[in-house]
Amino acid sequence: MPHYPIIDLIKEKKSFLCVGLDPDPRYITNQSPINFCYSIINSTIDYAVAYKLNSAFFEYCGIEINVIAEYAKRRGAFVIIDGKRGDIGNSSSAYAKALFENINADAATVSPYMGYDSIEPFLQYENKTTILLGLTSNEGSNDFQMLKLENGKRLYEHVIETSLTWQRKSDLMFVVGATRPNELKSIRSIAPDNFFLIPGIGVQGGSLQEVIDNGMNDNVGLLINCSRSIIYSDNPAKAALDIQKQMHGYL
Amino acid sequence: MPHYPIIDLIKEKKSFLCVGLDPDPRYITNQSPINFCYSIINSTIDYAVAYKLNSAFFEYCGIEINVIAEYAKRRGAFVIIDGKRGDIGNSSSAYAKALFENINADAATVSPYMGYDSIEPFLQYENKTTILLGLTSNEGSNDFQMLKLENGKRLYEHVIETSLTWQRKSDLMFVVGATRPNELKSIRSIAPDNFFLIPGIGVQGGSLQEVIDNGMNDNVGLLINCSRSIIYSDNPAKAALDIQKQMHGYL
Repeated sequence: MPHYPIIDLIKEKKSFLCVGLDPDPRYITNQSPINFCYSIINSTIDYAVAYKLNSAFFEYCGIEINVIAEYAKRRGAFVIIDGKRGDIGNSSSAYAKALFENINADAATVSPYMGYDSIEPFLQYENKTTILLGLTSNEGSNDFQMLKLENGKRLYEHVIETSLTWQRKSDLMFVVGATRPNELKSIRSIAPDNFFLIPGIGVQGGSLQEVIDNGMNDNVGLLINCSRSIIYSDNPAKAALDIQKQMHGYL
Repeated sequence: MPHYPIIDLIKEKKSFLCVGLDPDPRYITNQSPINFCYSIINSTIDYAVAYKLNSAFFEYCGIEINVIAEYAKRRGAFVIIDGKRGDIGNSSSAYAKALFENINADAATVSPYMGYDSIEPFLQYENKTTILLGLTSNEGSNDFQMLKLENGKRLYEHVIETSLTWQRKSDLMFVVGATRPNELKSIRSIAPDNFFLIPGIGVQGGSLQEVIDNGMNDNVGLLINCSRSIIYSDNPAKAALDIQKQMHGYL
């Protein structure tokens, strides 16, 4: 079984909560987007093991993502840059260097459409985690991910199975949406040992209980991401604590 | 037939060349990466209608992509930001705003894995072009894009066919690699009217003649991207002129 560094943090904090930093200027009224990020980290750091920095909003707001990544790391958190990157080899290699070396993120999300050589540059980093899109939480996941292949499998199943055969030094995680409990169970049987990054609890309607029933393994194996339901709640610290308490009960 | 604004530039310059700006610090020795970008634009602007700014290298080098985008637009070129983005709706919406509003790019590349709602925010912009990955030029395109579906089609064919049914205000282009002439022909029959952005000529080994034979339509329909074979040649102006001359012959 691979050793995911995140497991030590999970045991220490009795939490497998990842807080998603989506600084959306429509909802941030009384402070700058960058101060909003600091303030969310400060108020949730006791309950969250990881922060997922959504590069879309950082680009849109013009916040330098490395500044927030560095702060979250200094506070002891596991830092995921969520950019869903993927390009031909030399370009993906530049993305991997930007994310794993310049920013020193612990993990990065990548999109599988372009195949092995688009992901390989990420997989070559030791002590980093590559998080591959498997089955996402949005409605559009029906369009292509759920397609049935000639061999009877769904595309997302084939993507996950294939990726498990790839040579890698990096840990491999999968994005699996909480909105799909049945498929989560089947993905757990395909990838019994891998950690999953699970979005879709909260605003998108997934259930924590169902995710745990269908996705937890002996090594926890779950990192549950909440973005809007925590960061735009009236009391982010309490929202994070409420989830952490539930998580503690399952550990 | 959709009216692609790029066609006016193509007629004016007798060229359908897009120069790919991949500022890779390994190959830029005697100047800063940002000055390298200015210098490539200055030396190729008479022969190229478009510049494709590869966000991987801009992120890695720490060049502000909007500065170069603005410069290329000021010189009258069509500007593509090549980030292969795609995320759940509200995140894709932030990407679209970042690229089409903040940077004011003419076009952006997007990846289809997450389906319609991940692309829709881009498609809502009038007078912008959304460039969807179809069949890419790299070896890894065999891994998933070429998979055969239960209905007998390849995944890339299904992606392109499906995307043509999507509601949109934006023009829709497809990325089709020059390294796959047979498939290019079949994609042209699926999408007779759409422009294709064609990488893979030059370093990756595709042939201009084959691309023209298999992909050109009555409205040209081709935007051919060359990156390394121009920007890292001893004489980028001459390399671009050589291709433009060939293109002129086909127009």
